[in-house]
Amino acid sequence: MSSAVKKTGVKKVVLAYSGGLDTSAIIPWLKETYDDCEIVAFCADVGQGEEELIGLHEKAIASGASECHIVDLKEEFVADYIYPTIATGAIYEGTYLLGTSMARPIIAKAQVEVARKVGADAVCHGCTGKGNDQVRFEGCFAALAPDLKVIAPWREWEMRSREDLLAYLAARDIKTSASATKIYSRDANAWHISHEGGELEDPWNEPSKGVWTLTVAPEDAPNEPEYVSLAIKNGRVTHVNDEALSPYAALMKLNDIAGKHGVGRIDITENRLVGMKSRGCYETPGGTVMFAGLRAIEELVLDKTSRTWREQIAGQMSHLVYDGRWFTPLCKSLIAASESLAESVNGDVVIKLYKGQATPVKKRSPNSLYSESFATFGEDDVYDQKHAEGFIRLYSLASRIRALNSK
Amino acid sequence: MSSAVKKTGVKKVVLAYSGGLDTSAIIPWLKETYDDCEIVAFCADVGQGEEELIGLHEKAIASGASECHIVDLKEEFVADYIYPTIATGAIYEGTYLLGTSMARPIIAKAQVEVARKVGADAVCHGCTGKGNDQVRFEGCFAALAPDLKVIAPWREWEMRSREDLLAYLAARDIKTSASATKIYSRDANAWHISHEGGELEDPWNEPSKGVWTLTVAPEDAPNEPEYVSLAIKNGRVTHVNDEALSPYAALMKLNDIAGKHGVGRIDITENRLVGMKSRGCYETPGGTVMFAGLRAIEELVLDKTSRTWREQIAGQMSHLVYDGRWFTPLCKSLIAASESLAESVNGDVVIKLYKGQATPVKKRSPNSLYSESFATFGEDDVYDQKHAEGFIRLYSLASRIRALNSK
Amino acid sequence: MSSAVKKTGVKKVVLAYSGGLDTSAIIPWLKETYDDCEIVAFCADVGQGEEELIGLHEKAIASGASECHIVDLKEEFVADYIYPTIATGAIYEGTYLLGTSMARPIIAKAQVEVARKVGADAVCHGCTGKGNDQVRFEGCFAALAPDLKVIAPWREWEMRSREDLLAYLAARDIKTSASATKIYSRDANAWHISHEGGELEDPWNEPSKGVWTLTVAPEDAPNEPEYVSLAIKNGRVTHVNDEALSPYAALMKLNDIAGKHGVGRIDITENRLVGMKSRGCYETPGGTVMFAGLRAIEELVLDKTSRTWREQIAGQMSHLVYDGRWFTPLCKSLIAASESLAESVNGDVVIKLYKGQATPVKKRSPNSLYSESFATFGEDDVYDQKHAEGFIRLYSLASRIRALNSK
Amino acid sequence: MSSAVKKTGVKKVVLAYSGGLDTSAIIPWLKETYDDCEIVAFCADVGQGEEELIGLHEKAIASGASECHIVDLKEEFVADYIYPTIATGAIYEGTYLLGTSMARPIIAKAQVEVARKVGADAVCHGCTGKGNDQVRFEGCFAALAPDLKVIAPWREWEMRSREDLLAYLAARDIKTSASATKIYSRDANAWHISHEGGELEDPWNEPSKGVWTLTVAPEDAPNEPEYVSLAIKNGRVTHVNDEALSPYAALMKLNDIAGKHGVGRIDITENRLVGMKSRGCYETPGGTVMFAGLRAIEELVLDKTSRTWREQIAGQMSHLVYDGRWFTPLCKSLIAASESLAESVNGDVVIKLYKGQATPVKKRSPNSLYSESFATFGEDDVYDQKHAEGFIRLYSLASRIRALNSK
Repeated sequence: MSSAVKKTGVKKVVLAYSGGLDTSAIIPWLKETYDDCEIVAFCADVGQGEEELIGLHEKAIASGASECHIVDLKEEFVADYIYPTIATGAIYEGTYLLGTSMARPIIAKAQVEVARKVGADAVCHGCTGKGNDQVRFEGCFAALAPDLKVIAPWREWEMRSREDLLAYLAARDIKTSASATKIYSRDANAWHISHEGGELEDPWNEPSKGVWTLTVAPEDAPNEPEYVSLAIKNGRVTHVNDEALSPYAALMKLNDIAGKHGVGRIDITENRLVGMKSRGCYETPGGTVMFAGLRAIEELVLDKTSRTWREQIAGQMSHLVYDGRWFTPLCKSLIAASESLAESVNGDVVIKLYKGQATPVKKRSPNSLYSESFATFGEDDVYDQKHAEGFIRLYSLASRIRALNSK
Repeated sequence: MSSAVKKTGVKKVVLAYSGGLDTSAIIPWLKETYDDCEIVAFCADVGQGEEELIGLHEKAIASGASECHIVDLKEEFVADYIYPTIATGAIYEGTYLLGTSMARPIIAKAQVEVARKVGADAVCHGCTGKGNDQVRFEGCFAALAPDLKVIAPWREWEMRSREDLLAYLAARDIKTSASATKIYSRDANAWHISHEGGELEDPWNEPSKGVWTLTVAPEDAPNEPEYVSLAIKNGRVTHVNDEALSPYAALMKLNDIAGKHGVGRIDITENRLVGMKSRGCYETPGGTVMFAGLRAIEELVLDKTSRTWREQIAGQMSHLVYDGRWFTPLCKSLIAASESLAESVNGDVVIKLYKGQATPVKKRSPNSLYSESFATFGEDDVYDQKHAEGFIRLYSLASRIRALNSK
Repeated sequence: MSSAVKKTGVKKVVLAYSGGLDTSAIIPWLKETYDDCEIVAFCADVGQGEEELIGLHEKAIASGASECHIVDLKEEFVADYIYPTIATGAIYEGTYLLGTSMARPIIAKAQVEVARKVGADAVCHGCTGKGNDQVRFEGCFAALAPDLKVIAPWREWEMRSREDLLAYLAARDIKTSASATKIYSRDANAWHISHEGGELEDPWNEPSKGVWTLTVAPEDAPNEPEYVSLAIKNGRVTHVNDEALSPYAALMKLNDIAGKHGVGRIDITENRLVGMKSRGCYETPGGTVMFAGLRAIEELVLDKTSRTWREQIAGQMSHLVYDGRWFTPLCKSLIAASESLAESVNGDVVIKLYKGQATPVKKRSPNSLYSESFATFGEDDVYDQKHAEGFIRLYSLASRIRALNSK
Repeated sequence: MSSAVKKTGVKKVVLAYSGGLDTSAIIPWLKETYDDCEIVAFCADVGQGEEELIGLHEKAIASGASECHIVDLKEEFVADYIYPTIATGAIYEGTYLLGTSMARPIIAKAQVEVARKVGADAVCHGCTGKGNDQVRFEGCFAALAPDLKVIAPWREWEMRSREDLLAYLAARDIKTSASATKIYSRDANAWHISHEGGELEDPWNEPSKGVWTLTVAPEDAPNEPEYVSLAIKNGRVTHVNDEALSPYAALMKLNDIAGKHGVGRIDITENRLVGMKSRGCYETPGGTVMFAGLRAIEELVLDKTSRTWREQIAGQMSHLVYDGRWFTPLCKSLIAASESLAESVNGDVVIKLYKGQATPVKKRSPNSLYSESFATFGEDDVYDQKHAEGFIRLYSLASRIRALNSK
């Protein structure tokens, strides 16, 4: 492949670089394929873990990059991507908490910003051609920088396996710590980690213990439940166990507590955007607790029609985020609708963690429509049981007329 | 009150009778209030438990009823009310599995049938004036028998407490086993039991152990998980652990197994149809397992757009069932839509029960769109990674044009 | 009735007063019924026409009111109630442009403000007990002033007909210009006029010519079409035929132009909120043109998913406004979602008016996703026909897999 | 291009053939490109007009086809594709009555049937690479015959214009009646005709008179209105002006009547499935009348919640049909839901046609919830105005509680 005629028209490309096997191979491949273009490595720190970032700069340069930009997006990720999403209640296909999906737009945006700063004319990602992430990245690029050329090596080169990549790097004398076998494909950030591959490829297989990394097995969790309290303001967690924390810090603390209790494991066979099904396991320990906390306060403050509407926003948002349509007018509209409702999502909730479960057991809110003083409103002021008859008569009037007509 | 002028125009009334304190008092009250009308007691057996039915006939006659009809609706309840509802995926406000709601229409229908058989001109129920059930019963009566007068004593008489009722019965020398104090108000059937009142009236109280009756506490559940397998055909469970069972028998077996593992506890502050919020705890052990099983098979067989549509049906159905609109054209339409989708909901699922959780861990289906043989379709036949580029370009075209225009 | 024991507890009541027969009778009735309470007449000027306001103050005093407040709400009505509603695209049951519905919340709000100013302890309206408007008024009162008592004479007194009202006034020597017979019941404001009653009560009758008051019959409209141009900014009409106009002035001008061409007649049998159907005819000449103009610009600027979402907002908003739920968190959320989308609803549209039709024939927008320069983007930059194959393959992948599996 | 190496692997291909310039060129191109494969011409008669079919067989053979199959689908098209669609109320983006979209699945199905009969291994269509129809055809092929190869010449060859095609045919001595210039691109069937191109490419241009072919201009329509009556049974027109007619015959008759009055013109800038906007003009004279008739009966028979649900079905169906997803489980489910509701869509409607407008002016139904005898039900039986108070109190209870709480 590298012996072919070199492609032209790309002078400088910003690569979404993780230091893993794929993106390590992409650097030399880009240079060989695109006529010695300059490669700027870019890595978004969205909370995937410090061990992923150590030595990354050196590795990128050693692989042939001219620069390496590591951008800390941790707080912005939680504040501006995660919270607006979970405020809507979005869960993809009833189960998936959108961990990878929410990270893609912020990474793409930061990558474009680096491209602008260094004057690049192309961006490149290491996503495969069968997955969702290629669509998410390129959808964001289209919205933010339609002038930048997009390079997707997995759709272009002919390598198909880890062995191919290892051989490619070996031939170029580029060192890698990657092993020839890797059972699971994983993606991590502050919110979650995903696992695919291995025995998971058959939905008739129960995930083995080796799949999970962030949470203990419920069987191995403490035999005593633990209670964690959240203070919530405008749909955002401000305090954990009475400690004021930044969005990212609150999530980290909850990840720690919930992971110890085996909370947040998900196992789903989902519809990918590209039309096929895939099976994934996800761990979202802190997020599961946050999510449950928000919903618990909503139980107190949203009336029946508002809650129904919130579910419609959730359904739309779950597809929008999964499908990579973050930078669209639709997304702005959904968030505007959701944030309006979240103005009354204020209060405290206590969540019990035990053997894999996160159960809200205590809830209160200054905006509660259920109020301890309710009974003392007095019947005349708020509710007279005799009103119910009239309500029922009118509520069922169409049924009555239909029945009378059909006689 | 009984000294007032007697009401006329009701000769024979069929009362939804449970043998509890309320309906025991209603019998003499009806006779005294409605000029010695004849009272026919009616009790629907929807699986609330045999202990509730023992001696019921005698008790009704002793309280003053002329007849007592106990109708076995257990299989019909599961087959024709529960399954059509859970096939849609309906969950009220994200949490409540609609146990009481689903039972009301079948009870109302059977009550009307008894009324027709005995030539009654009125029906009566013991629901209070602040709850949903009055609306559900009377909505069904309006649809099925708009000519029958409906009597709702709690909205008519002046008694307000258990003490009032006990005194009322004592004054008439009618014996009752009811005690003066009762902490929780409960409603049971094959699918679930509900609990309200007591300390639950404050959502800031965690439910105490005494609330729950069908399930053990997760802390008291076995330390070893148990696996249960379901065979599912057209969205209905046909076998449990390879044993062919009727709909009702399958539910009973699952109630037994799941209850032992503390599965199916729900604690919700919900929006009542009559405009106020209430807090209830529900236990739905077998139903939780059934529900999880159906959703697990759907993961394999529903494509992205079909699944999204199924969620819309679920949302509609959850309100329709909760709101007592069963006997409406809308309900027929929702069920028609759902049953069409359920034609492919076939397969097997293995569910792990452990300390309060029911987790599908193995799934397979002859209609699966995720197939073990998928990878062997060959790239040319089904999916060429190069197709992805075209997909992405068109999929993000509007974003690209918008971005280009805004330059 | 007036001879009965007088009710107490109401000292001063603000009456929504029109000067018509009903509210003229309500003034003496209130004084006689509520123990000589003071009556403050209130009339909202929402553009119902100056002839309705002339002499109103004197008439109110002559009927027994102590004060009469006439409040000009015309600009606020168009700017803050009509525009937010039509931006969503809300049309009730596919036909009704919500003219009466949109006016109720602003009237109720102003009535409450007068009540606060004069220190009243009650509000009163003249709506009948079978219609929607009682629900709308009282729903708004509940949200804005739950402490104020609401008096609804039509649900309280025993008068049932115009004859009863005329006799009641005659007995009290109160003069009225109302005639004994009135075929149609009408409600007018800047946006529309509604007509009910008379031959319209049978949907098998075509509305007679005498029904309509704001528009000429299409048969009587000019034989030459007229073109009117609208400039639209953020979903609001700023110019009509290049003349900058206030929201109310723009509507008035369009009413005038469109009415001459017979535009804006509606004939619908609709579901009332109170459960029964009614048949109404409506005239919304200028509104029909405004509405068509907004939709025409949206054709250019909303992408497929955004437009679908806008329709969902429209459906929700149509019920919310019809059902009188304006002062709710749901309404705020819907408007937030809609205004976000409307940021790109900018441009010009030319509408042809001819014999009852308003047809947008020319449209342009700076935010258009359809652009004259589109073709010159060049195939490489935006769209390569060869991309379509990949799109189609992935777009239909689930169908392909399903078909292959079912072999 | 024809001098290149010939492709192999296709022995016999069924071409969707119209006799127009494009498909006339496709026949020789297929033979030259695919190594002398055999070409079977196929033409679906979906009511596009007899003049399109005269001489078609001869022309196909003369162009090089071995056989020509013309299949009469007219009644099936109306009965099994149009009626199920319009029963849902589907209108794409609020305006387009889906004429071309509905025809694609029935044509694709018949084409596959011919392919099976003649033992073909490929199918071919003449759709361009920028339009919707390629997606619709190929989506249906994927669902019905995933094993057949699909050939889309416009995405494969290098010809780009009418001139190219004429030169191509001239070089092969194949005669064509096609002229070098053709302003508009059109597609016709029993339901409608579409027009694109020419001055329509600028939405700021009003369509010129020459665009329209099925309808007269409203200005040229009769000065007297005409009334047409429809009898409707289960959502389908059975009689026009009291004459029992087959589905296709009824549509033809209505096309004739409505076209004379200028009814059914549509001008829309729409979002194509492939991500770009296009501007089209459509004429659907008879369909517009049918559609209005169905909706008119629905006004009488659907209650508020049923109608809201019907609108949701409509929204889904409009995208499904437009997007070519006919042969999917989702489509079956939508139709099942819609047909259930249509069981009560029975009655008569009289529609006034005048100068471009079709206005239902008289409606009646045996299933009407609005009934002439309604008033005579008596207040006690159906509606007591005093019931309204209770209804309103409960209906607005959440607002009241919220307002009381916020004090």
